[in-house]
Amino acid sequence: MAKRGAVLGIDIGGTTTSFGIVDRAGSCLARHSIPTPAREPAMRLVARLRENIDASFSTLARSHVLKGIGIGAPNANYYTGSVVDPPNLGWRGSVNLAELFREHFNLPVAVTNDANAAAIGEMEFGAARGMRHFMVITLGTGVGSGIVANGEVLYGSDGLAGEIGHTVVDPNGRWCACGKRGCLETYASAGGLCRTVFALLAERREESVLRSVTFRELTARMVFKAASDRDPIALAAFEDTGRILGLKLADAVAHTSPEAIFLFGGLTAAGGLILEPARRAMEKYLLKQYRGKVRLLLSGLGPENAAVLGGAALIWRELKKPHRG
Amino acid sequence: MAKRGAVLGIDIGGTTTSFGIVDRAGSCLARHSIPTPAREPAMRLVARLRENIDASFSTLARSHVLKGIGIGAPNANYYTGSVVDPPNLGWRGSVNLAELFREHFNLPVAVTNDANAAAIGEMEFGAARGMRHFMVITLGTGVGSGIVANGEVLYGSDGLAGEIGHTVVDPNGRWCACGKRGCLETYASAGGLCRTVFALLAERREESVLRSVTFRELTARMVFKAASDRDPIALAAFEDTGRILGLKLADAVAHTSPEAIFLFGGLTAAGGLILEPARRAMEKYLLKQYRGKVRLLLSGLGPENAAVLGGAALIWRELKKPHRG
Repeated sequence: MAKRGAVLGIDIGGTTTSFGIVDRAGSCLARHSIPTPAREPAMRLVARLRENIDASFSTLARSHVLKGIGIGAPNANYYTGSVVDPPNLGWRGSVNLAELFREHFNLPVAVTNDANAAAIGEMEFGAARGMRHFMVITLGTGVGSGIVANGEVLYGSDGLAGEIGHTVVDPNGRWCACGKRGCLETYASAGGLCRTVFALLAERREESVLRSVTFRELTARMVFKAASDRDPIALAAFEDTGRILGLKLADAVAHTSPEAIFLFGGLTAAGGLILEPARRAMEKYLLKQYRGKVRLLLSGLGPENAAVLGGAALIWRELKKPHRG
Repeated sequence: MAKRGAVLGIDIGGTTTSFGIVDRAGSCLARHSIPTPAREPAMRLVARLRENIDASFSTLARSHVLKGIGIGAPNANYYTGSVVDPPNLGWRGSVNLAELFREHFNLPVAVTNDANAAAIGEMEFGAARGMRHFMVITLGTGVGSGIVANGEVLYGSDGLAGEIGHTVVDPNGRWCACGKRGCLETYASAGGLCRTVFALLAERREESVLRSVTFRELTARMVFKAASDRDPIALAAFEDTGRILGLKLADAVAHTSPEAIFLFGGLTAAGGLILEPARRAMEKYLLKQYRGKVRLLLSGLGPENAAVLGGAALIWRELKKPHRG
């Protein structure tokens, strides 16, 4: 019997790298994670991945054949296959991930940044199937974005389009890891939510369980837990976070006029706590002709496989293109 | 001898409607303007245009044949051919301009908004020839934008993409004609420049010729004249205008990563007075990976023909498409 095709979807993150073997329908046949140690060179990570992938593919090898590898990674460039100065990885300068993987696997490889991968995953296997104009916003350690126009990811002149996390909410606002001030990421990421909690603790007088937590200890999960218990500071922090996100989503709509925006990533576990204020603010700041038309939704990819489905979707699309044969 | 092809490029503006007969190389063989009276129904305007065009084409008709009509108009939608609630025209509701022109001329017709037309003109006949990712910002009575990605105007899900003039500089800022507050248009348009002059007259103590001008009298041209004479308030007004424009251009770059941004329209007559602070602010607010790469330039279309070249370029592109035959 002929073997069926499958691809490898890989998500390289600051603490964990996940990989999955995914068939054409988006079913994840196997999935594993390995730690991404700080300061480990990229070459070493790829070698370890190779061992782990071989082991996890051994039983599937009887029925499936690997056709290619798709990778989502922070700061990755689709055009060049390289990752340049990734913020949370110990790699220095520019690393050509696509070449490294081709050397180790002898398969077609495609690379893109994690948010673009999420957008392609959504388009192939998630809630954006059939949509030609949409946007995915990833809310996690950072804020990323993948913009799809005319059914294709918008890469721009240099492969680096879609960095809505670094649009400016307030030019005199919070310092961002990127060196600028007031970036959306400093408000709408997990860390941004925690910063907003501290700003509110300073500003307001309400009692809050969060008054006995240090800045170093506080996590987005703790804010979510407190908000679920109706803690007024935690609720206000989600309200502010959603409002600022919605404001910048309205700006984004005025650029590319998508039919939907999908929120993806850790912070979306808060559901309506962030979605509702974001939706209200987006509608408020939208130009009249866009109002009531742009759906703001949670990602349609199950959280456990979402990261690897993006990379898998990317390489499935590449394999479809005529020039790849 | 076979007649050569030409098209009609039309720009419908709030006070003036211009038309030109343009050949494939972008030469304007004839050009005329007629007033656009407030409250004149669209049908009447088209009928008057028909008479004027017939008269001005009569001598060209021996050597040229008209192939189509391309129109730029405020609030025009490329997908539908309609103009909906144009801010400065007396038309009510939705007017299908494409149909009206087809009825009167029996030629292929394409319609788009004025800023998109400017972008297509720049791409076909101006300084964006050969560029696949760029943006045109029109600075005039309003602030419009046309975004080109992968060599095509970005229209979005509904034909209404590219309204950077209504992205938000300050949610508590100036009231905008669109009903929102703090839109870029309230700062970076001709009227926005005048509003900034009045804000500065209130805030500062420097002497200025503009202290003896009423709000109703003040025009962008007067501010330009004063700035040319080193009037401190006028200079500061251009500085502020450029800075706010540059901030929002940096946001725009983070969406679509263009290789260049072209400024177009009345306010660009001020040249470096607006370009220099805009460039400085854009660079300051750009994410590191975009810095030093995005060229901020003045339009490459001569101001006298720019408006009609956009419409002409639009219809020339449509005529090239396979389905138009």
